[in-house]
Amino acid sequence: MTTHLQVVGIGAALVDVLAKVRESFVEQHPLLEKGAMTLVDAEQASHIYSSMPPSIESSGGCAANTIAGVAWLGGRGGFIGKVHRDQLGEVFGHDMHATGVTYTTPMSADGPPTGRCLIQVTPDAERTMNTFLGMSALLEPSDIDDMMIANSDILYCEGFMWDSPSARAAVLRAIDVARRAGTKVALSLNDRFCVERHLDEWKHLVSEGVDIIIGNDDEVEAFYQTSDFDKACRSAQKDADFVAVTRGAEGSTVLTRTERVEVDAITFGNVVDTTGAGDLYAAGFLFGICNSLDVATAGKLGSMTAGEVLGHPGARPARPLWQVAVSSQ
Amino acid sequence: MTTHLQVVGIGAALVDVLAKVRESFVEQHPLLEKGAMTLVDAEQASHIYSSMPPSIESSGGCAANTIAGVAWLGGRGGFIGKVHRDQLGEVFGHDMHATGVTYTTPMSADGPPTGRCLIQVTPDAERTMNTFLGMSALLEPSDIDDMMIANSDILYCEGFMWDSPSARAAVLRAIDVARRAGTKVALSLNDRFCVERHLDEWKHLVSEGVDIIIGNDDEVEAFYQTSDFDKACRSAQKDADFVAVTRGAEGSTVLTRTERVEVDAITFGNVVDTTGAGDLYAAGFLFGICNSLDVATAGKLGSMTAGEVLGHPGARPARPLWQVAVSSQ
Repeated sequence: MTTHLQVVGIGAALVDVLAKVRESFVEQHPLLEKGAMTLVDAEQASHIYSSMPPSIESSGGCAANTIAGVAWLGGRGGFIGKVHRDQLGEVFGHDMHATGVTYTTPMSADGPPTGRCLIQVTPDAERTMNTFLGMSALLEPSDIDDMMIANSDILYCEGFMWDSPSARAAVLRAIDVARRAGTKVALSLNDRFCVERHLDEWKHLVSEGVDIIIGNDDEVEAFYQTSDFDKACRSAQKDADFVAVTRGAEGSTVLTRTERVEVDAITFGNVVDTTGAGDLYAAGFLFGICNSLDVATAGKLGSMTAGEVLGHPGARPARPLWQVAVSSQ
Repeated sequence: MTTHLQVVGIGAALVDVLAKVRESFVEQHPLLEKGAMTLVDAEQASHIYSSMPPSIESSGGCAANTIAGVAWLGGRGGFIGKVHRDQLGEVFGHDMHATGVTYTTPMSADGPPTGRCLIQVTPDAERTMNTFLGMSALLEPSDIDDMMIANSDILYCEGFMWDSPSARAAVLRAIDVARRAGTKVALSLNDRFCVERHLDEWKHLVSEGVDIIIGNDDEVEAFYQTSDFDKACRSAQKDADFVAVTRGAEGSTVLTRTERVEVDAITFGNVVDTTGAGDLYAAGFLFGICNSLDVATAGKLGSMTAGEVLGHPGARPARPLWQVAVSSQ
């Protein structure tokens, strides 16, 4: 018997390599695009890494961060994503299991190393990411655990998966399983360049039925090819039962087919690193949907979960939930 | 290998039978002493039960409530207490396991039934308790899991255990194991009449070393045989490294050998039932000590955990921790 899960995520299994840098480091480096996620190959990654100051390593990956956030909230989360059986792969697997996430995708003993995301955090707390997908890109349809998806409320799909033909085939299979099982399908737009790369295919995907769309204002505007935020929101409402659009420090806009609610951002002290904030917002929002909360409360839960990771370096919650609960009493 | 636990509780394994009654019901009933916990035998319990209005049943027991609270906060808790292999015993065991508590005390196939606590909740939210200890009273030294205690940070001892010779012997063995293993010993005073019944023995116990004392103002004053609260606090500071004294709606006073801090009570909406509030306060306070928090924060955590159960009937947290966290943002 498979345990019933609330959210299963499918995405890149990455370890983040995080450094604090000066603004000029990002401006002057030819491979860095401020605030964006740029894919790089092994050689480029090695080149960037060699120029980075001392860094910290911590488990990352967009959907993986989201699922870790669901577990942090006390939810039951599962993750599908591929690592190599190397040291960073061990780190990634350890952190998922230690967070209480169901994670059973087999490690690969050959092929490229475990993927990593090189993250430069500038003094404005903005992060600039260069991802070497490594083994993550080689996720295959045969890695998909059909039962895990069928026994879950929501399948959460990371947009970046479409950047690799193999991973794209895997996520399409996962979506097919979800649709047949009645599992809700959620799409994360992830990055405005990612939206532009896959616009036609995602339009088609949404026309065939996506239940939940999550992205930031730039991404949603890119998806609906408009610079009018309200128009983008109205279009999104027609496409999905639940939509959440993050807007940085301004909070988020959450929508159902008939409602639109503005939700404030929540911060705990200083904002030091925005890495993972969108992913963790998604965690709270999806967890709220699973628990049949109204969208306003689901959005507030997203704000809280995002707020937790804004206060420290790294993309996953660093302090236990009880600490958040008691600190606000 | 035994899992390392943060708090192991030893106490009565009871199922609460909870009814809302009018003030006059408690005033007029010869076996009820308002606000107190009175021990009754099987026949008296049956007599009270027959006069009670329709009730709800939920797992209870002072130390058991505390340990459930530790688990609710995300901590690792263990419990030692005895039930009969009957329906209420199954309910008790189920609820402990479902809360994530390590609970392995063997059920007994013969002897008295599982203990129960008949609780009358009056409109002022005060609870009046009559406990039929049943199988709980027959906890024996051989039921003590020495390894569980030795692998725990704190052993939390329910004062009511001294009301039964067999359970008293069991708790004394547990304390002996704890002292030899370096596990901190915490004593819950539980009830002012209980303090009066066991004053001499507890005085001796404390003189031999108790690390943590928890009780309410009445109980601590009874223990130090004074009606001067400040004097009682000063005496308690000499006796234990950590002391927490609850004072109902006024909050609590937490003390170390050198500090004294007043902590506000926390409520979430209306106070409807004070059952379990002291037990859950202890959960937060002990969990805080385990996490090396300063006593003020440990006390605040106690206030929050207690506050959670004040808002609904029953002695254990009814809503998930994330809900408390988000509701206060």
